[in-house]
Amino acid sequence: MSTRARIPRSSSLRAVAEAARAARACFEHGAWSDGHLRGRALRAIGNTLDRSRDRILRVASRETGLWTNELTPEFDRMTGTLRLFAELASNDTWRRTAHSPRAGARSIGPDHDLRSTLIPLGPVAVFGASNFPLAYGVCGGDTASALAAGCPVIVKEHPAHPGTGRLLFRLARAALRRLGPEAGLSAPILAGLLQYLPNTDPARTEVAQALVSHPDVAAVGFTGSRGGGLALERLARARAVPIPVFAEMGSVNPVRITPRALRARGAAIGEALAASVLARAGQQCTKPGLVFLPPGDGGAALVEAMAHRFRAAASRRLLAPWIAEAFRSRTAEIRAMRGTGVVAEGQGVTAGRGDVREARPVLLEVPARHLRGPMLEEVFGPACLLVHLDGWDDPRLPRPSSLTWTIHAEAGDLHDRGRSLVTLTLRREVERASRVAGRVIFDGVPTGVRVCEAMVHGGPFPATNAPWSTAVGPRAIERWARPVSWQNAPAALGRRGRGRRA
Amino acid sequence: MSTRARIPRSSSLRAVAEAARAARACFEHGAWSDGHLRGRALRAIGNTLDRSRDRILRVASRETGLWTNELTPEFDRMTGTLRLFAELASNDTWRRTAHSPRAGARSIGPDHDLRSTLIPLGPVAVFGASNFPLAYGVCGGDTASALAAGCPVIVKEHPAHPGTGRLLFRLARAALRRLGPEAGLSAPILAGLLQYLPNTDPARTEVAQALVSHPDVAAVGFTGSRGGGLALERLARARAVPIPVFAEMGSVNPVRITPRALRARGAAIGEALAASVLARAGQQCTKPGLVFLPPGDGGAALVEAMAHRFRAAASRRLLAPWIAEAFRSRTAEIRAMRGTGVVAEGQGVTAGRGDVREARPVLLEVPARHLRGPMLEEVFGPACLLVHLDGWDDPRLPRPSSLTWTIHAEAGDLHDRGRSLVTLTLRREVERASRVAGRVIFDGVPTGVRVCEAMVHGGPFPATNAPWSTAVGPRAIERWARPVSWQNAPAALGRRGRGRRA
Repeated sequence: MSTRARIPRSSSLRAVAEAARAARACFEHGAWSDGHLRGRALRAIGNTLDRSRDRILRVASRETGLWTNELTPEFDRMTGTLRLFAELASNDTWRRTAHSPRAGARSIGPDHDLRSTLIPLGPVAVFGASNFPLAYGVCGGDTASALAAGCPVIVKEHPAHPGTGRLLFRLARAALRRLGPEAGLSAPILAGLLQYLPNTDPARTEVAQALVSHPDVAAVGFTGSRGGGLALERLARARAVPIPVFAEMGSVNPVRITPRALRARGAAIGEALAASVLARAGQQCTKPGLVFLPPGDGGAALVEAMAHRFRAAASRRLLAPWIAEAFRSRTAEIRAMRGTGVVAEGQGVTAGRGDVREARPVLLEVPARHLRGPMLEEVFGPACLLVHLDGWDDPRLPRPSSLTWTIHAEAGDLHDRGRSLVTLTLRREVERASRVAGRVIFDGVPTGVRVCEAMVHGGPFPATNAPWSTAVGPRAIERWARPVSWQNAPAALGRRGRGRRA
Repeated sequence: MSTRARIPRSSSLRAVAEAARAARACFEHGAWSDGHLRGRALRAIGNTLDRSRDRILRVASRETGLWTNELTPEFDRMTGTLRLFAELASNDTWRRTAHSPRAGARSIGPDHDLRSTLIPLGPVAVFGASNFPLAYGVCGGDTASALAAGCPVIVKEHPAHPGTGRLLFRLARAALRRLGPEAGLSAPILAGLLQYLPNTDPARTEVAQALVSHPDVAAVGFTGSRGGGLALERLARARAVPIPVFAEMGSVNPVRITPRALRARGAAIGEALAASVLARAGQQCTKPGLVFLPPGDGGAALVEAMAHRFRAAASRRLLAPWIAEAFRSRTAEIRAMRGTGVVAEGQGVTAGRGDVREARPVLLEVPARHLRGPMLEEVFGPACLLVHLDGWDDPRLPRPSSLTWTIHAEAGDLHDRGRSLVTLTLRREVERASRVAGRVIFDGVPTGVRVCEAMVHGGPFPATNAPWSTAVGPRAIERWARPVSWQNAPAALGRRGRGRRA
């Protein structure tokens, strides 16, 4: 790609500082506080990406090893998200504006008139995901929501897909330039609005550190490993002025199946789970990694259906050599632990085509009594662990916190009190799942994230470091904003508390 | 007080662990998830406190040195806040429930039905304020909002007012006990719902550390010093499972006055500012600590009005010996700095009545060119620093982040473009103030916080560590909750996304 020649392999620390200053200047300039302009710009980016759809899919597929038919829905989610946030930016519904007029004797405290609204934090540093080069890449959810909120964005390159990242950045920048000064995007705004810091070497962490530590950066969005997320949070909180970090850090996504559901549709559930694990070579933050099986009819059918799919699955290239290496090491760790067994493995690596990125799917099993800590942590890649319970109520059942928790049940389970193995009612199970997950899925699979208002893509630690936020859906915009209140503001200043266009 | 005999001076670490476990057991029990019960309990506490109003005021005044006429509005704010959160707890409007029904072709991503709501985090540790023993004490804002959200509360005693704290706790616990099992408050719930950890020795920080580090504690509310707040945050984030800390850490609350406003009502503004500084002996987080004066008519009248009030003010006992000591040390530090001068001092400490808690009000001044870092930090107590600007637009004007920013202006300022000293329009000034403060006050004083929906009591660091949250008003409840989403939930499970009572 011609961009490779123009962009250095890794940014200098001076380039990081310049990017942060340019972003701050853009933020202070004020033009970007025009919601209509923000909407137009986000739509322009979406339209430009649409026009290069085939090229983006081709480049991303070649670079990541993800198939085009896997990337296509992701592409649509990326552009759909850009348009969703364009719509949000154009109006003020997301600002949670409130007006508390004087209330006379009913006022608690002095009877002031108050109007509140959300305002943007300032420049946002985005660390995109390895596994969603489009929907969580340069023009992905964090970028779209931050731009919509009024925050300039600096994207740190993901070393797993620099080609895709640079292509997306080039297209987005061109879209913004075409809008140009007549739309309100003058040179200083364009220079700071959306920037990209090359960083092809994953060992070169100084770029990330300098970016998060720069005083002109006001918030951080991160998708990746727990180690990476927590390191960024520590840096961000140790600054002279601490800033928020929103880190999504992987998940095991447990699946529970009632005996009744297992009996009624064990094989179908197994089919669906295998497809969910194997899609994108298991590299999804919502991949079902732990499946809890109660004893009883249907269990064998579920296991056999999954095993059949795993055996038929070919080895695939993972996103990066270090990801494949981590996958091999994590699966080897679990296979070596007491009580675990291999139910099925996928097709071996083709002789003579050995590739450090290639990985073989594996379906593992373990009785609940042998469950140990490392089995409750995410294995990123095409692996799944079946856990055989002694009963639905097995006291050994762990409840690891997770992005999602999936429950397969039948209508009868809901009113089934003490008449079968299900002594805990389904309602109680749902309450428990809600305590440890951001999203509870009924009778489906956790992969496949809809972008809508009621989506919560987040959850308790270690799934994220900020369980009060969501990375997907319109409410993601709020992570880049904070409330401010005006007390007894003169009417002539505008009605900030009533949806004034900011 | 008889309670002193029954309650130890400082809790043992075992007592901390027992409190955390009891709070967790109460949370897991589930009865407290009944919104009606929560509403009844909060109302019962409010009513019980009302019945002991005079006694509470007497005990608090004697212990804190705050006057009864200062504590009375605070008392009403405390009970008003309890009733506000009782009302919120009884319905689900605060949960931000959302329903995204299937949308067919318009769905971005898989077309699932999703319902989201806020759920409580779990047991909350509350570290109340030294300066608001009622409104931010045992039954204050953090406690009321956490209980309303469904979180059991453990209050760590504030060593500045253990007598008031223990009295409030005893009354609140009695109110809950009177509701009793027939209301749904069985013994295990009562044991864990609201607890109090004695800790009279401010040097004994192990109680706080053990509480914040205990795995059964899910969140922390803190009001106090920056050092204390940041230490708690560090502890909370270094846990195996990090938890959120909401720390309000003091503020300088700058005041800006346009030349036009100074001319029109300099003396009146000075009167109001002096009253605001001197109330509660300057021990308010929203006390105006920095007043920026442009040159011009009216300035002398403002200074003289303030000086007159300060000279007439008597020395007062501050909240605690260590607070008076810090006040003396901070004012001495600023007085010793180059360019500062004393405009006025209050009445000296009465001979023979020397009290380590007594402090003398002081009004200081400095030209903008001599402003230094320590002058931009809060001085907790009856002090205020007047800063003489070279002009409204003085480039030396600092913009320290703060809970509040106050602007005095006249109607003419808003449309005053290039025709006077005010070359920056008021609109621009308001935008700048909004960037560094949680609340912008027009033509008033920052002290006096109304409890209402549009209130933002919070702000950028160092005013708080969590600028996305407010400590006052109904939205404070959200800090104790996180969102969860249900995907394709069977209808029989209840309509969580539509205001189901949880």
